[in-house]
Formats: sequence, C-alpha cells, structure tokens
Amino acid sequence: MVLDVLRASSTVVTLLDHGAAPLYVAGTVDAARALAARLPTRPLLCGEVGGLPPAGFDGGNSPTELAAQAIAGRAVVLATSNGTRALAALAAAPAVLVGCFLNAAAVAASARAAALARRGGVAVVCAGDEGGSRFSLEDAVAAGCVVERLQALALEATLELDDGALAAWRLYRSYTAAAPPDEAAARAFAESWHGRELARLGFTADLAYCARVDASRVVPRLIHHGDALALHAFELD
Amino acid sequence: MVLDVLRASSTVVTLLDHGAAPLYVAGTVDAARALAARLPTRPLLCGEVGGLPPAGFDGGNSPTELAAQAIAGRAVVLATSNGTRALAALAAAPAVLVGCFLNAAAVAASARAAALARRGGVAVVCAGDEGGSRFSLEDAVAAGCVVERLQALALEATLELDDGALAAWRLYRSYTAAAPPDEAAARAFAESWHGRELARLGFTADLAYCARVDASRVVPRLIHHGDALALHAFELD
Repeated sequence: MVLDVLRASSTVVTLLDHGAAPLYVAGTVDAARALAARLPTRPLLCGEVGGLPPAGFDGGNSPTELAAQAIAGRAVVLATSNGTRALAALAAAPAVLVGCFLNAAAVAASARAAALARRGGVAVVCAGDEGGSRFSLEDAVAAGCVVERLQALALEATLELDDGALAAWRLYRSYTAAAPPDEAAARAFAESWHGRELARLGFTADLAYCARVDASRVVPRLIHHGDALALHAFELD
Repeated sequence: MVLDVLRASSTVVTLLDHGAAPLYVAGTVDAARALAARLPTRPLLCGEVGGLPPAGFDGGNSPTELAAQAIAGRAVVLATSNGTRALAALAAAPAVLVGCFLNAAAVAASARAAALARRGGVAVVCAGDEGGSRFSLEDAVAAGCVVERLQALALEATLELDDGALAAWRLYRSYTAAAPPDEAAARAFAESWHGRELARLGFTADLAYCARVDASRVVPRLIHHGDALALHAFELD
C-alpha cells in the first residue's frame, strides 16, 4: 500500500467516498490535461502546483474543498506528482492499495485479505516529500497506525515486522501514548514540515479532516486503464 | 556524521580508543588487502564477510575481540562495506564524523562545534543494512540518541529538526521511556534484524558492548590519505 497522507491519499479516499467514477491519477499537470482531453465526457480536473490549482483546472488537491463539489458518478482526473510516482513504481505488485489515517483500519483489513489470498506479505510504502527523496513524518506515523491495525487483526501473537515497520509502529505509539488517535495524528501534522507548510497556506480545515483516523471504509485500489492509472473503491464487509 | 552502529562505527571508535594509528577503512576485502600491501609496515588487517574474517586477515569486525589485541600505535586496515560506502558518499562534506551509542554525547558536541564554526547544520546519516538500501532500526535509534544529545547542548529552546530527526528522537525516547540508556540501546538491538543476526552468530558480547551509551569520548573524523580513507581521533575537552 502507498501512503501519501498530505494530501494525495486522503484526497483519493475522499473522492471515492463521494462517488467519483472513474478516478484517474496523473503524475503531471500536462499528463492530467492530456488524459482529460481523451475522455468521452469532460471530467472534473483537479490538482495543484505550489498549493494552487493550475490554469483550467476545476479544483485543487484539498479534500475538504473537493468534497463540497458535485462528484457522485462523475469522472475525475487528479494530478498529483508524489503519490502518482509511488503508485507507478509499484505497478508490478499484485495488489496496490492507497492508505492514510482516514481509512487505516479498512486498508489494513484489505491488505491482510490480499496478502492471505496470495500467501504473501504487506509492504507499506511512504511516498515522502519532494519526489520521495525526503522522509515525511506524517507518512511514517500513518504507516505506524496501519501497522497497529494489522497487528490487531493478526491471529498470531505478533506479526513479523521488519525494522521499518517496527520503528513506524513505535513512532505512532509515541503520539497515541498521550492522546486519542485523531489528536495524535493532528499533533504529527503540526510537527511535520508538510503539515506546517499546509497550515501556512491556510489549509487548516484539511489538516483537521485528514487526521480523522478510521473515518472511512473506502480502500482505493490501483487499476490500469490502458496506460492510465485509475483507482477503484472496494469496500470490505 | 555517519552511524553504522552494528558494528563498523562501534569498531572504529574502539580501535581509536585503543590507539590504532593510522586507521584506514576500505570498502571491500580486496581493497583492504591491496592497501595493506602498500603500507610501509604490516598493519593489523581486519574485517568480515558473513560474520567471519576473510583468509589472511588478523581479525574480524568484532569490537570486543579487536579490543583484546595489541593495537596501540599500530596501523590498522578495516574492511567494512556499508560504513565505508556511507563515508565515501560524504567525502565532499566539510567535516565527516563517525558516531554510535558509544560516543553519542562526544560526537554530538564535535558536530555542534564543527557546525557552529561553519555556520552550518548537522546531518546525521544512517548507514542502514544491505548497502544502505534497508532501514536499520539500531541506526535510527542511535540517531535519535545523538539528536537528544544535540538538543541538550543547544542554547536555543529547541533545535530546528527536520522530519527524520524528529522521528528518530521520538523513536529513541520510546525506548528510554521505559529503561536507562544502556538498556534502551540493548532493547533496540534485540528488536532489530541486524541485532538478532549478530546474536544468532554468537556475538552477544558485542551487543552488550555497543549498547554502552556515552562510554567513550573518541570521535573519529574522516581524513583523505591520497585515495585512501583514514579515520583520526580528535577528542573534545
């Protein structure tokens, strides 16, 4: 699963929650425009450069702003560089899911089901900042939240965790030791570089929104539509 | 500074503590042999492949075993792949130091002095496992220990920490919340992949030894001797 908590992962969960169909992701603004031009009906075109929607776009990358638009049943093309790069890099994996705080328990359950079906493991990939070259605090904390949810689902006494999963879990618990999950996530955002950037740009509603742990049961899954990447929701019982 | 806690960093601190002069590091067994052949006097040749000294070597990479040898005033060539790779990658930095639990406070003080002299910052580089491609729990925990020592030295209320430094600090404190530093480091080793590997190979004395937080004031610093990499000790007051 790929985590890009602020804000690509949280945005795609929100778009699918509100009925976007299909939802395409593109790695650049130009690729998003080209894809939108090829679709039979005009999609909702959204994304951001430096926190603002590019020219000709219908919206940015703010889940709270996008949730206010009429999305149900509408095709959406989302331009997001980091999240798309991470998704594209995993295109060969048997099942690629998108996770964040919003769907932590649901994505953990889906990943576990997919792993059991294939007798495989679960890899949690943090998209990071600046093209994946920088460690991102909020993605690591969210990874720890997912590890905790996976641990809660495990029939074994303890999951077999590698060093990164164990560190992420300890990091997450360093926040939840002092606060309930939503406040813990908000605290991680407040301490993170990216969270502080978004607060500076005025996206405080998004930060509160993206910190609502387990608020959604939607699990986006990567599907290839020709050479385009799309995300489909599948909800677990 | 470079951290390769198990065991290259701990080994070079120990070798310098015991008077090795000069101490060379080489990235491969062959490079170590070639360097040893070029030196005017026969050095102590040490290093490991799969946990054992290669043919013709005088010792492995075990700090407790090397500390038992006659080292004072003797040239040493240490073959260590991960640590040397990390050092070589930083060769352009103005000052490159080697840190681990053993010298956490001392390396923090040296790094702070070097950073203040250059009006720069401190970068803590975790060598990781498998050529740096894998996150290593013990290196991240030690990084957090160094961050805590840097924080204690700061005149400002709080240091400016990036997301990785903050996560490492929180990770370290997740161990020290329940135990004094030496036990915390030993616990991190016991949970880490590399620590469990070393325990399986019988190096339990090394694990206890490398977990002695702040036991040494020696700070190895990278020096270029022609195309060879050497480490010299400089001790702070």
